[in-house]
Amino acid sequence: MNGLFITVEGPDGSGKSTQIILLKEFLEQQGIPHVVTREPGGTAISDRIRSLILDPAHQEMVDETEVLLYAASRAQHVKEKIMPALAEGKVVLCDRFVDASIAYQAYGLGIPVEEVKAVNRFATGGLMPHRSYLIDIEPGDGRKRMMHRYAGESMDRIEQKELDYHERVRAGFKSLYNENEGRFCLVDGSQSVEAVFHTIEKDMKILLSNRYNT
Amino acid sequence: MNGLFITVEGPDGSGKSTQIILLKEFLEQQGIPHVVTREPGGTAISDRIRSLILDPAHQEMVDETEVLLYAASRAQHVKEKIMPALAEGKVVLCDRFVDASIAYQAYGLGIPVEEVKAVNRFATGGLMPHRSYLIDIEPGDGRKRMMHRYAGESMDRIEQKELDYHERVRAGFKSLYNENEGRFCLVDGSQSVEAVFHTIEKDMKILLSNRYNT
Repeated sequence: MNGLFITVEGPDGSGKSTQIILLKEFLEQQGIPHVVTREPGGTAISDRIRSLILDPAHQEMVDETEVLLYAASRAQHVKEKIMPALAEGKVVLCDRFVDASIAYQAYGLGIPVEEVKAVNRFATGGLMPHRSYLIDIEPGDGRKRMMHRYAGESMDRIEQKELDYHERVRAGFKSLYNENEGRFCLVDGSQSVEAVFHTIEKDMKILLSNRYNT
Repeated sequence: MNGLFITVEGPDGSGKSTQIILLKEFLEQQGIPHVVTREPGGTAISDRIRSLILDPAHQEMVDETEVLLYAASRAQHVKEKIMPALAEGKVVLCDRFVDASIAYQAYGLGIPVEEVKAVNRFATGGLMPHRSYLIDIEPGDGRKRMMHRYAGESMDRIEQKELDYHERVRAGFKSLYNENEGRFCLVDGSQSVEAVFHTIEKDMKILLSNRYNT
């Protein structure tokens, strides 16, 4: 595996997607081969699982089913898309990965952290990102941005969950950061888009120069 | 939990479905409240997962995804349907359960048995059947019955797999039987439908008299 596996993590409304677009442009300018993908989803099978997870009609879905469906989608994504791209030496830029499951499902839903980790280790075969950019924002701020974005539209099943849940998710991300400081790069998401990207870009340049001699 | 959780296990073509119909008739005659269900499936969400697993278009599905999808379907089935029926004191008659995942996925596909067991323990919360009727047949005989049944139709993705795989599955069921002799009732599926049912019925009468004072 010669590529570089980069994930961007953070709550809804933290500006992840914008940062991924900017990172993609940056990699294009540098002429570095890359793949941009996201979870849940990323392959035809994973996308079918994604639509099943997020279907607002599935109010009766139990927590264990949600954890296992995310993991099923991830297993397919890892083997079919991420691993082959890394084997070809590409940068894989992924919107959410295992950390999101641990933050949202273990910390958010209250399922034992070790159980969610074990199910996900089975799904990924132990693959972890080389770098994870964690964009941290106050849950209240993220909610405001999401409400604005979806004004007049119905939010999906996950996004409807209460603010309290989002506080637990944030605490989960912070715990993961504390356990894996070497892997994470923590970014203050309350800054401007440009300031957030400046931090990420500076870190990426170091990673890339080590890997691709840019 | 006052009910009785009964599973019927065995390869395709072993006559499981026929035995379940006969068992259902028997329970009706005895006036015992019961629920008949099956895996994968059994609830609306589980049925959607089932159709995703069995879709012949999904040739690229990796083994870990298959294991996790079966477990996801099972988690929903257990919490939404099986546990509530057992809590109401009903007999739950289920066509396949965890043993099938261990036989088909661990032994059949070659995934470590302990990993498949761990994922399934997470899915079921540790719920196991009180009795499992294992209908054993020569894989060649089961295949012949299936071919006959589907003459001129296309078999689904799982059923297309080679005979060698079915030999491994059979060995898996036998290992499970050896590890759990107290739970399993092994039935020779090469006998007539009536003879197979006679064995099952005799055993069920004892179980029911202990539980329901019939």
